[in-house]
Amino acid sequence: MKQSQLFTKTTKQISKEEVSLNAQLLQRAGFVEKLMAGAYTYSPLGLRVLRKIENIVREEMNKIGGQEVLMPMLHPKENWVTTGGWDSIDILFKVPSRTEKEYALGQSEEEIVTPFVMKRVNTYRELPLAVYQIHWKFRDELRAKSGLLRGREFLMKDMYSFNEDQADFDRFYAIAKQAYLAIFKRMGLTAKVTEASGGSFSEKISYEFMVLTDAGEDDILYCSDCDFCVNVEISKQKIGETCSRCNKGKMERATASEVGNVFDLGQKYGKAFDLGFIGRDGKKQFPVMGCYGIGISRAMGVIVEKNNDAKGIIWPASVAPFQYHLICLGDDAEVKATADKLYADMTAQGKEVLYDDRADTGAGAKFADADLIGLPTRLVISAKTLKENAVEVKNRNEEKAELLPLSQF
Amino acid sequence: MKQSQLFTKTTKQISKEEVSLNAQLLQRAGFVEKLMAGAYTYSPLGLRVLRKIENIVREEMNKIGGQEVLMPMLHPKENWVTTGGWDSIDILFKVPSRTEKEYALGQSEEEIVTPFVMKRVNTYRELPLAVYQIHWKFRDELRAKSGLLRGREFLMKDMYSFNEDQADFDRFYAIAKQAYLAIFKRMGLTAKVTEASGGSFSEKISYEFMVLTDAGEDDILYCSDCDFCVNVEISKQKIGETCSRCNKGKMERATASEVGNVFDLGQKYGKAFDLGFIGRDGKKQFPVMGCYGIGISRAMGVIVEKNNDAKGIIWPASVAPFQYHLICLGDDAEVKATADKLYADMTAQGKEVLYDDRADTGAGAKFADADLIGLPTRLVISAKTLKENAVEVKNRNEEKAELLPLSQF
Repeated sequence: MKQSQLFTKTTKQISKEEVSLNAQLLQRAGFVEKLMAGAYTYSPLGLRVLRKIENIVREEMNKIGGQEVLMPMLHPKENWVTTGGWDSIDILFKVPSRTEKEYALGQSEEEIVTPFVMKRVNTYRELPLAVYQIHWKFRDELRAKSGLLRGREFLMKDMYSFNEDQADFDRFYAIAKQAYLAIFKRMGLTAKVTEASGGSFSEKISYEFMVLTDAGEDDILYCSDCDFCVNVEISKQKIGETCSRCNKGKMERATASEVGNVFDLGQKYGKAFDLGFIGRDGKKQFPVMGCYGIGISRAMGVIVEKNNDAKGIIWPASVAPFQYHLICLGDDAEVKATADKLYADMTAQGKEVLYDDRADTGAGAKFADADLIGLPTRLVISAKTLKENAVEVKNRNEEKAELLPLSQF
Repeated sequence: MKQSQLFTKTTKQISKEEVSLNAQLLQRAGFVEKLMAGAYTYSPLGLRVLRKIENIVREEMNKIGGQEVLMPMLHPKENWVTTGGWDSIDILFKVPSRTEKEYALGQSEEEIVTPFVMKRVNTYRELPLAVYQIHWKFRDELRAKSGLLRGREFLMKDMYSFNEDQADFDRFYAIAKQAYLAIFKRMGLTAKVTEASGGSFSEKISYEFMVLTDAGEDDILYCSDCDFCVNVEISKQKIGETCSRCNKGKMERATASEVGNVFDLGQKYGKAFDLGFIGRDGKKQFPVMGCYGIGISRAMGVIVEKNNDAKGIIWPASVAPFQYHLICLGDDAEVKATADKLYADMTAQGKEVLYDDRADTGAGAKFADADLIGLPTRLVISAKTLKENAVEVKNRNEEKAELLPLSQF
């Protein structure tokens, strides 16, 4: 893509209300714009990042047998009354209409997916099943000041599994947890598996996937020695105590952001809708269900919180909107022609290139923009590099640039 | 994809409330399920069709210079008050919250896109611009009985153009109209460009892209001889009159479904938000804007209305969820191994194959399912075809099957 055609330019003018680092950097670099607290517009650059994260999640969900579906966001009130959520969930948006109907805006989809799947399952032979969607959700938040980390509207991957009994559920639950760790690793994030409350979904503990960051809204305790990690909300231990799991390390406190979670829902939702199946013993059973969330838009914010410096964002290659930032310096016709050709050649090879072809912008501004936008590799063509028949190559996360022969690209 | 793993099976049990043909066929074949009137869940098969239609639209919008963005669905009340839509648009969903805020659910995005784009445009040099999104929209419909043709929640492509003056707008408007005809042609639809009211958007006439179908909710008059076509709502002519455009043909009446529309918005929205730019004369100007919609989910319904027979759906290849329906008949081990290998080979070649590998299903049921699901080409492997070292090939829209050598695949 040519930068001269990109209508979202970098800017220094950010609303003073915007206190979160991820939203500041993403807006300064032109990836998103705040429409209101908790709701952002994604520019062409921002949308590319969102799609990259989505595709990582999609690939890993498909690998473990997830089937992708898409459920409505506008839900009939009845489904939420059936599970009790209509009256008990305070962040549920309730939408009146011109007819006698009232609707809920989806904040999770157990109320929709349970009838959708279980009406199709007659016997245990049709289980296990796991379906997922990547879709927008809504929460009536009182405050939303953490940029992409807390949205009134946000993009989620939510998967739901249906198993015939607890043992088969446990088997799949372990597989899903491993897939989650693989997903976050691909995004360049290290997530701690953290014991937490089941909330409104389950009486059992859930597992949250926590990335340590001061921008997060959760407090966790983790062992300095083993993998044990627990949300302070349910922790029986205190800071400095010896870890009860390994009896070696000390419990330390950290602030973190929850990029994913998995819930053992038990038989709650099958029972609520009275939708079961014929089990191996010929009797009616209810499925043991699981719910598996990943905040796609939140992950984008967390990635920015974890990957930046004073100059701007430093995107991991796996989620960068483009891999290369090609910069043409000066107005020499031969320099311009060489850069144009390199852009055309690389694009034809399927490489993702953002080409700073702007004629009216100086070298300093172009370099500053490239650092702010934060693509993995910067390529510079100038009169100086052309004399060597070379391209200046510099990675965003390194200080040193080097000259490589043009022919190499 | 293996059909044995697909959890949405074909069914004969459709709610009697479902009167529209598109929703009946799509539900019987397992593409969608009705959650409530005007809101459908898309199964893995249905989602693939939706994505194919999306991608045709995306490619053609990119070709004419559209830049893809994604705007929130939850809008601040203020933006809709600014344009008067908050009080005047009856299908606008209004969402109360726990805070003092109220929101609108997006039904079109002029209120959001105008500030988003125009805050970034300082002078005429930064115009023209066209941005678009492919996103869900909401309408508080009193009735929604036409399946995917009228949704309370529906997928739209909406593009917005910004030009410095009427002449430049007219230039782009003509380009966009041509792109629309190309899009519908790629989907296998013939759309008539129909003069219509500008509705709440504009005082000028708009153009609707109408596909003739009795399932539609619009009545149009069209000339039997020339291209002239007009929505009866604004027609000055009556059925049987001589066409006032060509003075040759007669005006005939038809029922149609509006799959797209384009609006000349004039300067209405720039003025409402007081967002202009410095024109060539050095004075402040307001952009001449256009709005260009395509109903993605509605198009899916219209395609089904136009492409079916007594046995089921007949997907045009361009939007079919898979190109091939490979059917393995009988439980002979060699037949099964041959079909398995053919599936693996074709998939490895990047071909889209739905493989009916079900062991417990008879030939009659498999053929009936294939006709109902409606993929372009059916391939059958059986003991009979294996004897000839061949595959039986039949196109969904033809009666005759032929045997082709296995080696050809």
